[in-house]
Amino acid sequence: KINGDRLWDSLMEMAQIGPGVAGGNNRQTLTDEDGEGRKLFQEWCEAAGCTMGVDAIGNMFATRPGTDPDALPVYVGSHLDTQPTGGKYDGVLGVLAGLELVRTLNDLNIKTRHPIVVTNWTNEEGTRFAPAMLASGVFAGVHDQAWAEDREDADGKKFGDELDRIGWRGEEEVGARKMHAFFELHIEQGPILEAEGKDIGVVTHGQGLSWTQVTITGKDAHTGSTPMPMRRNAGLAMARVLEKVEEIALSHAPDAVGAAGHIDVYPNSRNVIPGKVVFTIDFRSPQKHVIEDMVTRMKAAAKEICADMGCEVEFGVAGGFDPVEFDEGCVAAVRNAAERLGYSHRNLVSGAGHDACWINRVAPTAMVMCPCVDGLSHNEAEEISKDWATAGADVLMHAVVETAEI
Amino acid sequence: KINGDRLWDSLMEMAQIGPGVAGGNNRQTLTDEDGEGRKLFQEWCEAAGCTMGVDAIGNMFATRPGTDPDALPVYVGSHLDTQPTGGKYDGVLGVLAGLELVRTLNDLNIKTRHPIVVTNWTNEEGTRFAPAMLASGVFAGVHDQAWAEDREDADGKKFGDELDRIGWRGEEEVGARKMHAFFELHIEQGPILEAEGKDIGVVTHGQGLSWTQVTITGKDAHTGSTPMPMRRNAGLAMARVLEKVEEIALSHAPDAVGAAGHIDVYPNSRNVIPGKVVFTIDFRSPQKHVIEDMVTRMKAAAKEICADMGCEVEFGVAGGFDPVEFDEGCVAAVRNAAERLGYSHRNLVSGAGHDACWINRVAPTAMVMCPCVDGLSHNEAEEISKDWATAGADVLMHAVVETAEI
Ligand SMILES: NC(=O)NCCC(=O)O
Ligand SMILES: NC(=O)NCCC(=O)O
Repeated sequence: KINGDRLWDSLMEMAQIGPGVAGGNNRQTLTDEDGEGRKLFQEWCEAAGCTMGVDAIGNMFATRPGTDPDALPVYVGSHLDTQPTGGKYDGVLGVLAGLELVRTLNDLNIKTRHPIVVTNWTNEEGTRFAPAMLASGVFAGVHDQAWAEDREDADGKKFGDELDRIGWRGEEEVGARKMHAFFELHIEQGPILEAEGKDIGVVTHGQGLSWTQVTITGKDAHTGSTPMPMRRNAGLAMARVLEKVEEIALSHAPDAVGAAGHIDVYPNSRNVIPGKVVFTIDFRSPQKHVIEDMVTRMKAAAKEICADMGCEVEFGVAGGFDPVEFDEGCVAAVRNAAERLGYSHRNLVSGAGHDACWINRVAPTAMVMCPCVDGLSHNEAEEISKDWATAGADVLMHAVVETAEI
Repeated sequence: KINGDRLWDSLMEMAQIGPGVAGGNNRQTLTDEDGEGRKLFQEWCEAAGCTMGVDAIGNMFATRPGTDPDALPVYVGSHLDTQPTGGKYDGVLGVLAGLELVRTLNDLNIKTRHPIVVTNWTNEEGTRFAPAMLASGVFAGVHDQAWAEDREDADGKKFGDELDRIGWRGEEEVGARKMHAFFELHIEQGPILEAEGKDIGVVTHGQGLSWTQVTITGKDAHTGSTPMPMRRNAGLAMARVLEKVEEIALSHAPDAVGAAGHIDVYPNSRNVIPGKVVFTIDFRSPQKHVIEDMVTRMKAAAKEICADMGCEVEFGVAGGFDPVEFDEGCVAAVRNAAERLGYSHRNLVSGAGHDACWINRVAPTAMVMCPCVDGLSHNEAEEISKDWATAGADVLMHAVVETAEI
């Protein structure tokens, strides 16, 4: 069993870096705070006897050697970056539980045949630089590295430049590492485990995502002196599209969700009818055809709404991934570990995207989930109990050790 | 008659300062560019033999002396600040036409009994610091000076600090000046004069305004893993309120308008359901009871929408003014000037707010309007012809000179 107190203390120490405004964290990717978090993680890993490798896109790999020089490593980890108003556990738990299992194996003087590598993937959240899971996507060959480095934040700063600025571009070629397997522990970010009183979610699938960036162009004009019939109000057109997004997602209930979290209005002046709005619609479902249907219907509705209002509409892709089915063997290792340890468990479909969803393309992969209070995440009030974290990390360790072979 | 070429050249020279991105201007109040524009205006006024006074809130007063030491001055002017994506004429025409009439009187060696004062009012647009017409409002005793100086821009910078920073706080007590009359020339910012082929609008009234700042609080949560029934989507609630704003304004057509130009979404991350939105609703009508009715109905609708969605809503006042009736004598002076000069004209109700609306409370006031292309304003593509500007400035000069007495 892992040391739950030590894991919790490390979580609390990491949460000191990039504090939020309401008890959570703002440690967005490639900020100075992200750099500080990485440094602390590196120190901890080295203190635990690991050697740190960093690839050219900032992914961090802390290796605990195995006994067989020919055996590929078992990878474990998640991400240390957070939302702008994020919680203390989303991502961080998966990285620090990986570190904790290394510390526990050290304490117990247990050696594994396969090396174990604890990983921190760069820019999982995708807020500052869309899309989410950017660097694990490059690692898995989904995105081109140059394209990823070209992504810009809201101030026009590029991912590649910011990576250099914080000093975390490593030497390693991205994606060159070969994996025996990959395991990721994550908080559920949804309400099911807590509601059912289950300790562990055995993640069998992940739902897919489409991020459609919508740009509606109307005409900037005076809010006072422009007669109503002459207006081409891009803000009102957006409002009508948002109502449609809700209607379309609900039409597939409970197998789909939809919302817009990102909305920019131009010129954003109280006495100017919006001439342009840019917003991103997030549609998700475990079924690919449902996502496709929602996107198609949304685009048709937006075109009709905009045509009626004298506005123009354009669509871009800000991110997306297909629904995922995790590796049978790895999923079984997670389920067996929960069984063996006596934790209650159930199968889950992940509602969120995770680095594991991309890594699943290049290595046998599975995920462990633990409950979180009220299913709340992407909120500074995100909360879990020490017991939940401990159970999740225990199951993670057992699944990893079984796969890495003692 | 004024010198239309000289007026036009000055307009084009001023438009060099704080250029926009699409042929217009971004010379927002109390920016460095505003400071540069003020400096150029001061140089021009001094070259025309005027002495410049500046009050403690940055309003500029360039005086051409009269022949009677006891006669109160006739004031004329408007504002040099612009929207973030504003035009070259909104405000600027009224200031530079005031300067042009002084230059013309100099050329013709005409003296008036009353002094003539050309005025540039600080922060008419109200984009950077709400409300609009802030400094003329302080001058007219509508706003407290300390309150005005406390207004903050989106970066939290205060009006008073920015005034000091650009170095345009004067010594004069705000509102101490007494006026014989005030005249303002402005582009119509609406489509009526152009559509009817009229040269001049004789502004008899101004419609009133209410800016209600609405804050809707929902709950930040993950767009992927939060089930639809658990969501408290503040962005969707806003969308529903925007639809109501349109419906309510149209119910009073053609006597009312309504829109939201300003919308901020928090935390504005693609995978976070908006936990908070702040937006400003602009309702206007020539009838006070219509504005009151629209605000009341909007608030009731917003409360119902938010209650249904588990969101909270709060309302604040970001600005507003009652409908205005301009001074009969000054209005007649404008109409007579248009008649005498042979320009076609019609009465108008101003759709926008103007400094003249506040000054009307402390001095006999009227406005002259000239057409603008497609009624378009608060847009970089705002356009007028040199002939329209010349006609407007001619009428302004004749009304001013008649009032200032030769
Ligand atoms: N786990 C998580 O919050 N990932 C961010 C990517 C997503 O939006 O699903
Ligand atoms: N004229 C003008 O655009 N004034 C700004 C204040 C308003 O919104 O009416």
